[in-house]
Amino acid sequence: IGAQDGNHIASLLQPLTHSEALREILNLKEEDRVAAIALMPVELAAMLIEEAPSEIGAELVGSLAPKQGADVLEELNSEVQADVVGEMDTAQAEAFLSQMDAEEASDVRRLIEYDDDCAGGLMSADAFTFPQDATVGTVLRKLASDDTDFERYRGQHPYVLDAQGIPIGVLSLRGLLTAKRVQKLSDIMVAPITIQVETQLSALEDIFDAHSFLGMPVVEADGKLAGVLSRTSVAEAVAERAEHESLRRQGVFGDELRSMPLRIRSKRRLAWLSANIVLNIIAASVISAYEETLTAVIAIAIFLPMVSDMSGCSGNQAVGVTMRELSLGLVRPVDAMRVWLKEVSVGVINGAVLGVLIGLVAWAWKGNAWLGLVIGLALALNTVLAVSIGGVVPLILKRLGQDPAAASGPLLTTITDMAGFFLVLSLATLFMPFLL
Amino acid sequence: IGAQDGNHIASLLQPLTHSEALREILNLKEEDRVAAIALMPVELAAMLIEEAPSEIGAELVGSLAPKQGADVLEELNSEVQADVVGEMDTAQAEAFLSQMDAEEASDVRRLIEYDDDCAGGLMSADAFTFPQDATVGTVLRKLASDDTDFERYRGQHPYVLDAQGIPIGVLSLRGLLTAKRVQKLSDIMVAPITIQVETQLSALEDIFDAHSFLGMPVVEADGKLAGVLSRTSVAEAVAERAEHESLRRQGVFGDELRSMPLRIRSKRRLAWLSANIVLNIIAASVISAYEETLTAVIAIAIFLPMVSDMSGCSGNQAVGVTMRELSLGLVRPVDAMRVWLKEVSVGVINGAVLGVLIGLVAWAWKGNAWLGLVIGLALALNTVLAVSIGGVVPLILKRLGQDPAAASGPLLTTITDMAGFFLVLSLATLFMPFLL
Repeated sequence: IGAQDGNHIASLLQPLTHSEALREILNLKEEDRVAAIALMPVELAAMLIEEAPSEIGAELVGSLAPKQGADVLEELNSEVQADVVGEMDTAQAEAFLSQMDAEEASDVRRLIEYDDDCAGGLMSADAFTFPQDATVGTVLRKLASDDTDFERYRGQHPYVLDAQGIPIGVLSLRGLLTAKRVQKLSDIMVAPITIQVETQLSALEDIFDAHSFLGMPVVEADGKLAGVLSRTSVAEAVAERAEHESLRRQGVFGDELRSMPLRIRSKRRLAWLSANIVLNIIAASVISAYEETLTAVIAIAIFLPMVSDMSGCSGNQAVGVTMRELSLGLVRPVDAMRVWLKEVSVGVINGAVLGVLIGLVAWAWKGNAWLGLVIGLALALNTVLAVSIGGVVPLILKRLGQDPAAASGPLLTTITDMAGFFLVLSLATLFMPFLL
Repeated sequence: IGAQDGNHIASLLQPLTHSEALREILNLKEEDRVAAIALMPVELAAMLIEEAPSEIGAELVGSLAPKQGADVLEELNSEVQADVVGEMDTAQAEAFLSQMDAEEASDVRRLIEYDDDCAGGLMSADAFTFPQDATVGTVLRKLASDDTDFERYRGQHPYVLDAQGIPIGVLSLRGLLTAKRVQKLSDIMVAPITIQVETQLSALEDIFDAHSFLGMPVVEADGKLAGVLSRTSVAEAVAERAEHESLRRQGVFGDELRSMPLRIRSKRRLAWLSANIVLNIIAASVISAYEETLTAVIAIAIFLPMVSDMSGCSGNQAVGVTMRELSLGLVRPVDAMRVWLKEVSVGVINGAVLGVLIGLVAWAWKGNAWLGLVIGLALALNTVLAVSIGGVVPLILKRLGQDPAAASGPLLTTITDMAGFFLVLSLATLFMPFLL
């Protein structure tokens, strides 16, 4: 790839799936990528931007001239428009919005005000609506005349609005097909269940669990219809949340992709690593306090990282289970005590097994049964501590309004490192006569 | 909770959301839980089982008598039935299936044959179908008469089958509303796009990206209609895959929830930890080879775990980004070289920054600039190695057909531990005269 002609680019990308096409475009050098996006047909550019994470989408649109960028944006659904424009700074966003159709631009301006993870941020501004004095015939004619447009509503039921724009009814297909064509919609509609714009994702999951609708109307605080939220958008947002959480747990923030500028990638990763280095220094200071013991029994140094590492792994398993139960709604911060008891049982068994294992290894390796006892006992105790902390810390962070995905791991590791070093070294000090 | 009366249980759970109700039930002691499920109305039991992960669902159904369990199963959608029954052993599954409606039971037997993550395992066996010689009037009458049933098809288009059960057409709402009632379906249908039962989830994502349908017909190898796959099912499966992957990365397997028996939870976690202990022993043996250096410069022991830990964190960030790009389809095993180059750039910058930081700390702490140089240089080099391994290892595991989510972390940690210990200790040996 590297051609000068838009149709040629289009024909090269044609046989690929959307994600393959996006991969090819992102693999281009930056200037080639900008040139390729500018040359390709707007529908193709829009498809690539829809497929890309919104940050990348904003970069791709941002590289275009305002008029062309606006044309590409107009091809997208309103929620994708808002996601992409929301990633731009205000001046850049206005440059594109001012070139767009006025009504679409005002929808986007409205949607970007909402948080990404609430009903307002996930809904589509396009709704399939009729005034209450319309007749059944009007709706059927609209359905019959306008199939492409209907596809945009993705199987959503039509809503009936009053003069203020408040949804007062929803129409079922059966209602429409069995009523007379001259009947007013107000005679056959049923009252809709509505969602407030600020409803959070976890509550939305519960609402869609409880009702079997494919989509539900979203209303502003004053009751006016703001948009329609589809079941699919909720499911997709849940998938995205799970992926982001898993990345934050590994210290990756802000949707990093390798096509982003090196400076940004490096800076974001460093921010988290620098915090981690401080925690590591705190943990290592425990070792520093026991230098005498270490010098006397240097074999201990071999087992220090093992004990802290293994307990860290056990603790991380507990973090994983708690994070999962949190996301399934099966556990709340007030359940911390119950979670702790459950973890202690696992910790005692696994600590005993791992402690005996590593104790035997230490004994066999260095030929000293007391060394085996010190290392094994330290690992057993630290495993119980690690699963306790790992199980409970995400709940406490959640209670404190912190992000359990990003902070649980480093906190856990620091505590289990400190405790692991302390246990090994203080037990070694205690049993020193037998270790020499 | 702990009442003897099913309606009482139902009224207690009534005000709760589905996930809250499930949480309350799972928090009961096992005998109370079994009693509560047996006493509650079948609709309520079915709702709880639909909400629960399939392993828990199978346990809840399994605690019921065959007839009652079969009644509960009949309330569920066919894909949930198959997930739940699929978790049981053959004898138990047959006990329930033999009590169910013969047709539903045969659907379940058919669905459990498919992998969870392919079209056959995600589709619903319920399809909204008509023979090709049916008329438009038949479909409209069916739609008008049968709204509850229609809701089961969640906005799916009706399909037209030939005499062999092969889908030969799909009907649009516009087509139905604009045609005459006596017209045959074969006159207004369009050819459907079908999906093979064995199509994998990642391919299904591409297919639903490329087409805007809410659902698509799934066919067997012989072309016969097997079921319907909805966009929502695909989105939900993607969310589940992301969550499982994130758990496997932390060493949690098989959908662990704390309501599961202690023995199973402990055993599953131990399996992964025992493999880890072996890797840890391999890494620690590097330290053992340098006991002399350690004894001479005991301060090194303080920094050994820090260097290996910090590089492990850097490497895990690279693993996270690669896993994300893999799941977005933006990277393939053949891109390993490109990924490696991208990671080396980040590694050089971050390694330099972190190396200088930790070098200054070591210098200040122990008052020896050479010690700072040894530790800083080791961390810088090991960071470059860690991000290289972290970025590329998931791709290699994927190429080898292994599970990158479960194996990348332990492999990475072992290599960065070994390399970190080796770099610190061999550099310390090299600069020994200046460290004493």
